[in-house]
Amino acid sequence: MTSRTPRPRERGIPEATVARLPLYLRALHGLSERGTPTVSSEELASVAGVNSAKLRKDLSHLGSYGTRGVGYDVEYLIYQISRELGLTQDWSVAIIGAGNLGRALADYGGFGTRGFRIAALLDADPKTVGREVAGLSVRHIDELEDVVSDEKVSIGVIATPAAAAQGVCDRCVGAGVGSILNFAPVVLNVPEHVDVRKVDLSIELQILAFHEQRKAVGRRGPGWADALEV
Amino acid sequence: MTSRTPRPRERGIPEATVARLPLYLRALHGLSERGTPTVSSEELASVAGVNSAKLRKDLSHLGSYGTRGVGYDVEYLIYQISRELGLTQDWSVAIIGAGNLGRALADYGGFGTRGFRIAALLDADPKTVGREVAGLSVRHIDELEDVVSDEKVSIGVIATPAAAAQGVCDRCVGAGVGSILNFAPVVLNVPEHVDVRKVDLSIELQILAFHEQRKAVGRRGPGWADALEV
Repeated sequence: MTSRTPRPRERGIPEATVARLPLYLRALHGLSERGTPTVSSEELASVAGVNSAKLRKDLSHLGSYGTRGVGYDVEYLIYQISRELGLTQDWSVAIIGAGNLGRALADYGGFGTRGFRIAALLDADPKTVGREVAGLSVRHIDELEDVVSDEKVSIGVIATPAAAAQGVCDRCVGAGVGSILNFAPVVLNVPEHVDVRKVDLSIELQILAFHEQRKAVGRRGPGWADALEV
Repeated sequence: MTSRTPRPRERGIPEATVARLPLYLRALHGLSERGTPTVSSEELASVAGVNSAKLRKDLSHLGSYGTRGVGYDVEYLIYQISRELGLTQDWSVAIIGAGNLGRALADYGGFGTRGFRIAALLDADPKTVGREVAGLSVRHIDELEDVVSDEKVSIGVIATPAAAAQGVCDRCVGAGVGSILNFAPVVLNVPEHVDVRKVDLSIELQILAFHEQRKAVGRRGPGWADALEV
């Protein structure tokens, strides 16, 4: 996310709202899995970690206002948000880097059900090329341009070591890939028209650490809380 | 995140602010890597994907107000947020499940530098136990309770198949683990005092899909935008 170029508002939906829609969608999928038919804005906001006034405003951008005393229909709201995010069509994704992370991503069940099709997994290592991973045969990085063109890849997922990431990114962009999801611990430079998001897997751990710290302070008593403040 | 139990406010920092602090931290680390000494609230807000009034309010909870005309000192703000999140001390983490994802997480460079120490990687498969991953020897799941106690593990990362996740979670909680980070595609049930966060790796892809859709509509011209609305 650090390397994401700010873009102007598109069709009136603020960028910050777009960033929150997947959070609502994740919360809604959780409710749907538990068989919950409707959800209040307060409840959905609490699960998604935003305040309910903001949630109502965000959803109003989608033309979704809920029903007084009932709330939002979970399945319909999933459909509305998915449509808004473009998830009702399939997006073709190429994963570059078939190490542990690339293989884990190729094998990740969540993508297929969310509108993403892993079209190819590529690697530079001859020992890895040709191996079967999640039903795909790993292809050589030299085939990248052909893969992008043949499979109409619009999103490239970079799961290479840091040193290889910029080179791979440049080749993706050169081949016409419009969006890059970067798992490598580097900041990538891309032209203006390309979107980059950087994933930092430690973010969720950081939120948990906050709660652990508070719990630890609670066990030690209030005196320690002040001491830790210093 | 879907299975996270809402908790009361702790020391006056709203839960929604806590959830955004790691986003600011990620943005700040990006600025720091580029050697940027100060950042305005507008700039930081844009990179983190929130509006600047909200960012200023969030940071005011930390007692950080920036300097008019200069903005925030990047390194000092990193320190303040890290301290607030409890990242200035080391947290001991156990990863359960040494498949592709577990191995990728154990090998993930971002954890060590963010205040997390991977204390152990455990698996139930005898063929995996004893293998070396990221400098750790994979331990058998039956050693979980000893590992938690010996290594003072406070955060358990579940990277098992879905079917095994609840059982592993129960054992973590029974052993005294206070926080669970769940990568398995299931909703986990935990007692009130335990924090659970669920990671959905497809979230960032969903945001990119939104932009790809908008770009595609732009290429086809406004007439198509209306057609896609239906």
